[in-house]
Amino acid sequence: MNRFWNPEDIAPKVLAPGVTAKIASGERMMLSLVTFAPDAVVPTHSHPHEQMGFMVSGTLEFTIAGETRVLSGSGMVFVPGGVPHAAKAGPGGAVALDAFSPPREEYR
Amino acid sequence: MNRFWNPEDIAPKVLAPGVTAKIASGERMMLSLVTFAPDAVVPTHSHPHEQMGFMVSGTLEFTIAGETRVLSGSGMVFVPGGVPHAAKAGPGGAVALDAFSPPREEYR
Repeated sequence: MNRFWNPEDIAPKVLAPGVTAKIASGERMMLSLVTFAPDAVVPTHSHPHEQMGFMVSGTLEFTIAGETRVLSGSGMVFVPGGVPHAAKAGPGGAVALDAFSPPREEYR
Repeated sequence: MNRFWNPEDIAPKVLAPGVTAKIASGERMMLSLVTFAPDAVVPTHSHPHEQMGFMVSGTLEFTIAGETRVLSGSGMVFVPGGVPHAAKAGPGGAVALDAFSPPREEYR
């Protein structure tokens, strides 16, 4: 199992139109470095996996169970398992790091 | 339980000389936004919690079980639970995001 990753060596996975992710997986967790094109959207969805997110750059409108905040500058979020959530990038796009526990098997 | 955090609102916790962290905790995971002063060191240690890390800025010499790599530019690492690891910042310091599962109770 890898212990070190350079994102340049990870093939991007398309999550939604204009939204791609580079995935690194541990045993209990998975990291997903997500790049959003300007105004790109991840529609409302949910999954049993717990999710925490961290803003790397740009801005995101992030909605958790109907509550929306604009994230920027190292903002962090917690999405409990099973709770509906969505994201929409600002006009400059965004980069965010998501962590999931357990790892999402469909992303491996 | 918080779902959104602005790091400006989180009091920093001192992890080692020149190393501070801002902590956000979920149920299965905890995020720790770690700032390293130039050349600051986290000595070799281990914990039963799984750790994954992401480089936000700067450079870190990161050692996992005796294997050392220099991390920069969105590099990611996986430290299985119980495995010894250490970090040393470069001359410009560093910022990294660590994720732990389960959350580290001593950091709450």
